[in-house]
Amino acid sequence: MQVRVLGSAAGGGFPQWNCGCPNCAGLRAGTVRARARTQESVAISADGARWFLLNASPEIRAQVEAFPGLHPKRPRHSPIEGILLTNGDLDHCLGLLSLRESHPLVVYATRAVEEGFTREDVLYRTLQRFDGQVTWRHAMLDTPFDLMTHAGERTGLIARAWAVAGKLPVHLEGLRSPSPEDNIGLEIRDEATGATLVYLASVGQVRDREVEAALRASCLFFDGTFWSSDELRSIDPNAPRAEQMAHLPMGGSEGSLARLRELPPGRRFFIHINNSNPVLREDSPEYAGVREAGWDLAWDGMELTL
Amino acid sequence: MQVRVLGSAAGGGFPQWNCGCPNCAGLRAGTVRARARTQESVAISADGARWFLLNASPEIRAQVEAFPGLHPKRPRHSPIEGILLTNGDLDHCLGLLSLRESHPLVVYATRAVEEGFTREDVLYRTLQRFDGQVTWRHAMLDTPFDLMTHAGERTGLIARAWAVAGKLPVHLEGLRSPSPEDNIGLEIRDEATGATLVYLASVGQVRDREVEAALRASCLFFDGTFWSSDELRSIDPNAPRAEQMAHLPMGGSEGSLARLRELPPGRRFFIHINNSNPVLREDSPEYAGVREAGWDLAWDGMELTL
Repeated sequence: MQVRVLGSAAGGGFPQWNCGCPNCAGLRAGTVRARARTQESVAISADGARWFLLNASPEIRAQVEAFPGLHPKRPRHSPIEGILLTNGDLDHCLGLLSLRESHPLVVYATRAVEEGFTREDVLYRTLQRFDGQVTWRHAMLDTPFDLMTHAGERTGLIARAWAVAGKLPVHLEGLRSPSPEDNIGLEIRDEATGATLVYLASVGQVRDREVEAALRASCLFFDGTFWSSDELRSIDPNAPRAEQMAHLPMGGSEGSLARLRELPPGRRFFIHINNSNPVLREDSPEYAGVREAGWDLAWDGMELTL
Repeated sequence: MQVRVLGSAAGGGFPQWNCGCPNCAGLRAGTVRARARTQESVAISADGARWFLLNASPEIRAQVEAFPGLHPKRPRHSPIEGILLTNGDLDHCLGLLSLRESHPLVVYATRAVEEGFTREDVLYRTLQRFDGQVTWRHAMLDTPFDLMTHAGERTGLIARAWAVAGKLPVHLEGLRSPSPEDNIGLEIRDEATGATLVYLASVGQVRDREVEAALRASCLFFDGTFWSSDELRSIDPNAPRAEQMAHLPMGGSEGSLARLRELPPGRRFFIHINNSNPVLREDSPEYAGVREAGWDLAWDGMELTL
């Protein structure tokens, strides 16, 4: 399985348009040791020709252009065979509305995520210019499904989704009750090689199910939004805590690094990293702690073969 | 008046994600003489500190980062005081949903454009996290209005909007009848210097009103979507003609270059240039014709002082 990180930042990216915090200002000034990052999305392929995106970031156009594997091979074409959505947050879905050039799209998501993006959404009509412009294939929880091309051919990748701790997207808060389908983890297996990618980009808690999946994984991507619960409050005193935003912090005795310390050595990466996270500074004690624990940060352009 | 072109391409940008036409494929391969372009947006300011955007492209995050004038000066800040929308097309509005980090926004638009983006739009709730997150200031046709800061201070720029030939955004087609408020031209005057910018990014016809405004302008930006009516059909035989998409082609005896040939020498730029347009190739006869007529193409990063 080939893996390409298209974007590795949380919503807003790094730097963020309205943020002059030490990380963002330092990155712009070139005075901190850190990399710019676009919003989280990862491309995967079993054969290097037919690709699937994990999430559709608002920056999808630049992300596609930055990776030759996703460039068209004919006048009207895209190697993107499908897009999987892990939740309905706009930093994961808004990119769909940038793929509106009358091109057929296949989207794998739970029914709850589909409805949260398409119901009462007049903008979505831009993807309804002809019958079948978007084909939604519903990911059923805890049931394996093939990642297939638009034409319905198997590609050798098999996915399984399960409910993870999370919350409703901001734009649905107050409209309906949360559902187990709102936030999913993904385990994607290459049936030829047995390589397994576990993708947990937004999770509020590490439960046994996540640990078990991580133990089996050839490669793990995990929610690296915040280092600590009150990190945002150093920028904005009224900001919510990490837990209120359904992100488990990386640091601390209850954090993800501690919770996942039993994992064997291997490919473990934090992704969906918020601009406020001190770990972004590669000379910080937090980043040193990540490396010592056998982890690293995903970065835009990172490629792996599993 | 300071002017910075943030993006100069039509919807989809150049190259376009699903397009392998000679222009797009050649740009990716480095075999054509052309520049990559993001989707159309222009920033203007009377004082170099308080800026207004003309349209909010889907690529607004990268566009802001590429221009130091728009970087925050404090931990939570943006020099963007307001955004003007010339119509409700998603390539002009979608960027609003990328400015959702709980930051107050001011948007100048007609009531028709506001309603077309916000009514029955569940995604827009992401900009309704607190009262007053977005302040819509309605542009009345043919009535001058001050471009003011969020706090209501005048900035020395005075705008006037008028109805231009156009059509409904794709996502509203079939939902309601067209309105004169759907597509506007903008004339923006710096009251200190008298400099005037005329901004006509999407127009289906040049009428007397556009010619009169262009004759008065210190600088003109004009719709450069297509060179010819049937340009898209060379890529996709089922594609609509330029006129069906409400864009007046640049070339031909009835095109914009011919229609505006009476303009005095000065700053005249085509903007909103589609990936299919042969004018993008700087060694093409079409581009030579543009230069001979005293025009040029806007490009990402272009700056002017009027």
